[in-house]
Formats: sequence, C-alpha cells, structure tokens
Amino acid sequence: MSKAPYWFEDFSPGTRFETEGATITESSILDFAFRFDPQPFHLDAEAARASIYGGLIASGFQTLITAFRLWHGLRVMNPSSQGSPGMDEVRWLQPVRPGDTIHVEAEVIEARASVSRPQLGIVTFRFEVFTHRGVKVMSWTSVSLCLRRPENRPPETLET
Amino acid sequence: MSKAPYWFEDFSPGTRFETEGATITESSILDFAFRFDPQPFHLDAEAARASIYGGLIASGFQTLITAFRLWHGLRVMNPSSQGSPGMDEVRWLQPVRPGDTIHVEAEVIEARASVSRPQLGIVTFRFEVFTHRGVKVMSWTSVSLCLRRPENRPPETLET
Repeated sequence: MSKAPYWFEDFSPGTRFETEGATITESSILDFAFRFDPQPFHLDAEAARASIYGGLIASGFQTLITAFRLWHGLRVMNPSSQGSPGMDEVRWLQPVRPGDTIHVEAEVIEARASVSRPQLGIVTFRFEVFTHRGVKVMSWTSVSLCLRRPENRPPETLET
Repeated sequence: MSKAPYWFEDFSPGTRFETEGATITESSILDFAFRFDPQPFHLDAEAARASIYGGLIASGFQTLITAFRLWHGLRVMNPSSQGSPGMDEVRWLQPVRPGDTIHVEAEVIEARASVSRPQLGIVTFRFEVFTHRGVKVMSWTSVSLCLRRPENRPPETLET
C-alpha cells in the first residue's frame, strides 16, 4: 500500500488505504481543548462527568485533525495534492474518550480530470475513523486536487 | 449581541452573530502545519512559491479551528451546547495568507426541538469567515445540540 509517490492516475474508485494508529490521551484532550475548543465536556473533567457524555471526550476537531495527520503520514497526498476545496458530511458518530486509539480507513469514491487545469485531477475520498475496539467514531468525504504524473502534464504547467 | 447565557430558546432563524478577529501569521501557519497538516504549501515557503498558490497559505484546518475558537469566544455556546453531530458543506473558498486577519459571521438557519431528548433543541448554524479585506475565505454549516432554559427542561434531566 506504500508505493509513493502517488499521482492522480493512481487513484481510481475503490482504491483503499489504512493508516497507522494514534492514541488519544486525557492530557492531549485537555491541551487541545484549552487552545482550540474549550467546551466544558472537552476541558473540565468534573463538568464532563455531569454532561450527557458522562466524562471527558475529545473535541471533534481534534479527532478530525489527528485523523488527517495520520492520513498525511501515509505519503499518499504529497507531492500530488494541491489542496482541497472542501469536505462534506462531516459526522461525529461516537465520542472519542481518553485511551482510545484511532486509525483511518480511506477509499477513493470518484476521480475525474479537471477541465480548467489540465495538470490536475479531482479526487473524492471517503474517510472513516475507527477506535481500537472497532467503533466507527467519525466519517467525512473530502475532495483533493491531485497532480497528474509529470509526463501527463502539459509542459507549460510543469513548474507546479 | 453579548447577552450570555444563551439557551435553545434564544436561537431563532435569522439571529446573527459576529466575532472579533484573529491575525494569521507566517509563524502560526508553519507551526500548525508542522504539527497537523505538513503539506508543502503550508510548511515550506519555497515549495509554496512554486505551487499553484504562489506562496504560503494556512491549512484549511487552521482556518476552521481558529474560526471555531473565535466563535466560542462569543460565549454563545457555553453553557448551552452539548456538542455537535457534524458539519456540512465545508468550503475553503480562497487561500488565507500570512497577515490576514479573519473573523466569523454566524447565522441561525434552523432551530427545532429534539424528539428524543426533551431537555435539548437542535440548532443549525451557517458560518462564514472573512478577511479584513472582506474576502470570504471559508464557509460551513454545523448542527449544535443546545440545552433549553432550565425552567423548560423536564426535572429529571436537570443534572445535565
């Protein structure tokens, strides 16, 4: 599964990837919350116990960015990806709690050539995040702009 | 606009909020990228110059979480919000570059009672992020589970 570099031509519907894991600690939940998402059920263990979650849970943004970092670590995006116009159907399905180890499974949903930029293709990925217990905690779809193989790019675009 | 605490009953379609600003520096872009999103156009000023962006741009996740932190700072979510099931139509519309100061404008799109949890309502917000030049750089919608006013909650749910 690790055959970097990947280019647009390497992404066809059904292609799947699976990342390594990352453990979410109470400390990382509190640190992330203090900086980015200080809602009580992420930042205050006592308030979290009294909340509908019954204890501290990770910010959904922490789960998202940790998942993205794991995904990036596969070296599937570099050097091909030229960014993303957006994400759809971002869902936080179950809480992520201290001690959970999460990993990401990704699948190519669609891959098509860019009309306006002949050096690029447009790839839609479906992402699912699971805990070590097999609980799906998060999912979303995302579009990436991916460079074609160098030999398939118009010469005038080869500086990108 | 600052009349905390807000409860579910305070959110009706058309209610609008505007946050203070936050300046995105080159340093914060590089720091965030190194930790969370090390794509070359976020992490490597030289590679970024040669990319389709022509220079360093902030990770879209940095823009998102900075915007959420600004939103949280209005004290509209605490203590009412009990978390979110997800986001839709997350769009990165224009790059955010070093020196850009961003702020968030939010509007209530829908507010309805929860059927399964009588202490909660379900509020859909539309978020838009602008630079100091008035350029819309990001938008998304998000659903929040919001507590009703204490006097409107069934007594058996008042611990949450």
